[in-house]
Amino acid sequence: MARLSVSDLLKTEPTSQDVTVEGWVRTFRSNRFIALNDGSTINNIQCVVDFENLDETTIKSINTGSAIKVTGQLVESQGKGQSVEIQVSDIFIHGGADPETYPIQPKKHSLEFLREKAHLRVRTSTFSAVMRLRSALSFAIHSYFQQNGFYYMHAPIITGSDAEGAGEMFRVSTLDAKNPPLKEDGDIDYKQDFFGKETNLTVSGQLEAETYAMGLGKVYTFGPTFRAENSNTSRHLAEFWMIEPEMAFFDLDANMDLAEDFIKWVIGYVLENCQDDLAFLEKRLLDEEKSKPQAERSEMALIEKLKFVVDNNFKRVSYTEAIDILRNSKPNKKKKFEYPINEWGADLQSEHERFLVEKHFKCPVILFDYPAKIKAFYMRLNEDGKTVRAMDVLFPGIGEIVGGSQREERLDVLKEKMAALNIPEEELWWYLDLRKFGTAVHSGFGLGFERLVLFVTGMGNIRDVIPFPRTPQNAEF
Amino acid sequence: MARLSVSDLLKTEPTSQDVTVEGWVRTFRSNRFIALNDGSTINNIQCVVDFENLDETTIKSINTGSAIKVTGQLVESQGKGQSVEIQVSDIFIHGGADPETYPIQPKKHSLEFLREKAHLRVRTSTFSAVMRLRSALSFAIHSYFQQNGFYYMHAPIITGSDAEGAGEMFRVSTLDAKNPPLKEDGDIDYKQDFFGKETNLTVSGQLEAETYAMGLGKVYTFGPTFRAENSNTSRHLAEFWMIEPEMAFFDLDANMDLAEDFIKWVIGYVLENCQDDLAFLEKRLLDEEKSKPQAERSEMALIEKLKFVVDNNFKRVSYTEAIDILRNSKPNKKKKFEYPINEWGADLQSEHERFLVEKHFKCPVILFDYPAKIKAFYMRLNEDGKTVRAMDVLFPGIGEIVGGSQREERLDVLKEKMAALNIPEEELWWYLDLRKFGTAVHSGFGLGFERLVLFVTGMGNIRDVIPFPRTPQNAEF
Repeated sequence: MARLSVSDLLKTEPTSQDVTVEGWVRTFRSNRFIALNDGSTINNIQCVVDFENLDETTIKSINTGSAIKVTGQLVESQGKGQSVEIQVSDIFIHGGADPETYPIQPKKHSLEFLREKAHLRVRTSTFSAVMRLRSALSFAIHSYFQQNGFYYMHAPIITGSDAEGAGEMFRVSTLDAKNPPLKEDGDIDYKQDFFGKETNLTVSGQLEAETYAMGLGKVYTFGPTFRAENSNTSRHLAEFWMIEPEMAFFDLDANMDLAEDFIKWVIGYVLENCQDDLAFLEKRLLDEEKSKPQAERSEMALIEKLKFVVDNNFKRVSYTEAIDILRNSKPNKKKKFEYPINEWGADLQSEHERFLVEKHFKCPVILFDYPAKIKAFYMRLNEDGKTVRAMDVLFPGIGEIVGGSQREERLDVLKEKMAALNIPEEELWWYLDLRKFGTAVHSGFGLGFERLVLFVTGMGNIRDVIPFPRTPQNAEF
Repeated sequence: MARLSVSDLLKTEPTSQDVTVEGWVRTFRSNRFIALNDGSTINNIQCVVDFENLDETTIKSINTGSAIKVTGQLVESQGKGQSVEIQVSDIFIHGGADPETYPIQPKKHSLEFLREKAHLRVRTSTFSAVMRLRSALSFAIHSYFQQNGFYYMHAPIITGSDAEGAGEMFRVSTLDAKNPPLKEDGDIDYKQDFFGKETNLTVSGQLEAETYAMGLGKVYTFGPTFRAENSNTSRHLAEFWMIEPEMAFFDLDANMDLAEDFIKWVIGYVLENCQDDLAFLEKRLLDEEKSKPQAERSEMALIEKLKFVVDNNFKRVSYTEAIDILRNSKPNKKKKFEYPINEWGADLQSEHERFLVEKHFKCPVILFDYPAKIKAFYMRLNEDGKTVRAMDVLFPGIGEIVGGSQREERLDVLKEKMAALNIPEEELWWYLDLRKFGTAVHSGFGLGFERLVLFVTGMGNIRDVIPFPRTPQNAEF
């Protein structure tokens, strides 16, 4: 007798065949109807038991959360909302779940409560749907790149170079924390540390990805990155996953084309392959928003929003155009922005990005050609001498979801930029080598994976789209 | 005019059509024949230039390593070993590579030399082949699991739990390294650290994967793991990637079936999709072995060896049987083993594993039912009270490539085991919760990704199958 998943069974033509299925009880009604879930799908299979033929101990062990094995006949369902059900002939209890102590009961739990139970929350419909989508999005990302001639590369996690300056870093060490060895000058003697130097957790794999793009042509990373910033917001994590494609011979236009095509394809993939989970999350969101005033509700339901992204061109706007739009906008004139836009060169804040995306253009926006002063040292300087070939993709409700650039491929220009920012050449000798030997136009971008999952699932807090979130004061599990 | 990769061009029917291609010069012969490579394939495309029509500066810039853009007609090749070539009408030099200083010249470099140039070594045929295979293997792994109903989960990298004891750990901290805050008792006050507690880099995502398997049914991790062990061997890295599937309702037999099917499928995938790279690496290995005495050469060539793994059953042998075989083996009787096998309970060393795989069975071997004392606390105790449901998959030349077990699902037995090993319950309260609520038979295993890449590429040192290896005293790049 084949062991099938609930997902398989729900797609099977019922011919009263014998089946076996294992999973966890979601609900048990009237000592008769078990809704059984095994994680393979958001949907449960109904198992109908004849309680008169079951001993009392077994009946008592069938509670929400119990793990059971059910054998019976697969038949057409009499009930509504399901095509098949199992007429149970035998039940084996793997393990019960005492309703007095098991925290995940069939009622509405707050997301905050479930965050404290991160080891159990994936047993709820909401989190299982989010995590199945997270898995599907991951695979979509790999599939897109592999189909398009990119090679996956693993950038190092522990790094001895801290030159990028993308953010505060976590130190990695095996030295005695209380009594570290000191040099004569009183500083810590990192020569005695595991790697013989001071090391940190990576903030980005981009620089290393560039070394691989200059050999393999098109590569991408997909790995964890870290920021030791004390940001307790719904959009920041200390440990998050990032995707960083890097392409030789791509200029900024090709880079923007790729970013747009990539995001659309990945979202299209889950629209096609994760319909049940998306429908569940859409309904969840609609229910949640019912309690909000009309003006605060989303303009589009979740699936409509995803289709909108797939079907419409992203609006491409230069930073300079964007500043003009913002300077002349109502909120700016009425002094509604916390950071008023007065002149060219200002760094854009979340409020400005949201205005452009949500109010002005009402679609995803790609901003490009930013002032050199507000962007990283490795971005290619334009001929105007004051802007760089940077681009950010801005999404409604999320803000920046992608940040990228064409990279400075000219050795002399890159050296000048590093000198101006006091980045020592010795730190990045290998990065400079790429400009000494066979340098070429190249580009890349970074996508914060959790922000994509937030957007696709409609969840509101980034802590709810990663299994075990790491944030200031929190590294439980 | 479409921009095509070298890989695309080599598959194109030549009709004298105009094409453009960009890449790096591998060699330039007779001022006439450029072998151009763009990383998309191990093969180069021959670009034939008419040097009389090229200015001297351009000619001089065409050196090994130069990045160039070539335009011309795609025609049938006159030369041997290639079907098409480009009759060049125009060349643009992206960036030269001074032959006096560019380290990657068209001659044989030692792997040790190239390790020092890890940012450039992917521009060689050997490393580009290895890294394309690494990418293909990664995708094969994701594809296998996704097609078989598994969900990808990201286990945390920074962890506050250090109870597993799989190895020495790296500490992660943002405290002032020189003057860490102290408590009244003089110990470091980790409450003031970023996460409010002492944290380390993960040695395994298994325990967290178990929490997800008990909700989603079948999951797998694929992420970096860390060991702060001072092992300077050709098989150990401080930072390496691991794949850890975990399945609810799988016993050890199902676990072994999965491991075998998984490895065979993944190797089958690269046999089908990476023929050129495998052929190159096979030839490389044969050349390398020519200098060795006959007895030290491999019995099978690389591709034959991979096919052998795919086509033959792995031999399943209990630890007890294996001990009998070893005890009665020639090398044991002749005292050739460094660690003689005298009695049941001995931990198997690499020499014993190799004897079983390479001499006795001459095929991959799965050993199972190990003594409880030499295995981890979470492995399920057998009814005999002295062995656990552990299994290791042993490969020729590699040794242990997979280690797994059925997990102890009984709360009381697990608690006893933890108590005996002084593992505090408070540390693993969430892991114990899995046994309190809806516990069930479940199993999983871990595959060291770099060991798989070693096996498939035939490379000899694990530092040569990961882009930027981290080992004691080495975290460059």
